Amino acid sequence: MAELPIPPIGDVELGTVLSALADPHRRHVVLELLRGRDAERACASFELPKAKSTRTHHWRVLREAGLIRQRDAGNGTFVRLRDEFDGRFPGLLTLLSELDLGASTDPSAPPQR
Amino acid sequence: MAELPIPPIGDVELGTVLSALADPHRRHVVLELLRGRDAERACASFELPKAKSTRTHHWRVLREAGLIRQRDAGNGTFVRLRDEFDGRFPGLLTLLSELDLGASTDPSAPPQR
Repeated sequence: MAELPIPPIGDVELGTVLSALADPHRRHVVLELLRGRDAERACASFELPKAKSTRTHHWRVLREAGLIRQRDAGNGTFVRLRDEFDGRFPGLLTLLSELDLGASTDPSAPPQR
Repeated sequence: MAELPIPPIGDVELGTVLSALADPHRRHVVLELLRGRDAERACASFELPKAKSTRTHHWRVLREAGLIRQRDAGNGTFVRLRDEFDGRFPGLLTLLSELDLGASTDPSAPPQR
């Protein structure tokens, strides 16, 4: 049940958060957690690159950016959003979720009117 | 009056924008432009690292992220926000401006209640 280290929420900086969320894999994971709010999920249940070192790196970046809590349960690691995050940067994740759904990132898609 | 190249606004991706704005210098520049909306400013009027190559790099990243227009007027370069940006990612810059003002990034500041 060891919880991996995370920074105090007051020390988390906006630049670190934006940098963490700039990566599409990491943004996708966070927005999935947002949609299932309060739910803890197995890290293995997310679509991330397969290499273990890469996966570990992505989770660490998200922890250090103050976005998630992660615990090692022996039979796997589990993750959830930090509920203090929205108090630190109110509205940010909700807006990113809306923008991610609204703005097509497919260059072949027709322009929206 | 040569305008430097910028991507079509529909091709701009959220990840590229977040990455551009993760840097505190670039975020500061964009939020200053936001506060003086519609105003064009001399690039030289912004506080950025002094090295010309570094300054040029920061402006290029902001252009490629779809955030700014920049023109070379011979006697200097001038910059303004792209007015299409808010249509592409509605509310993002306004929210970041609020969060930047609201969340102290000074680790020595007392925690907010």
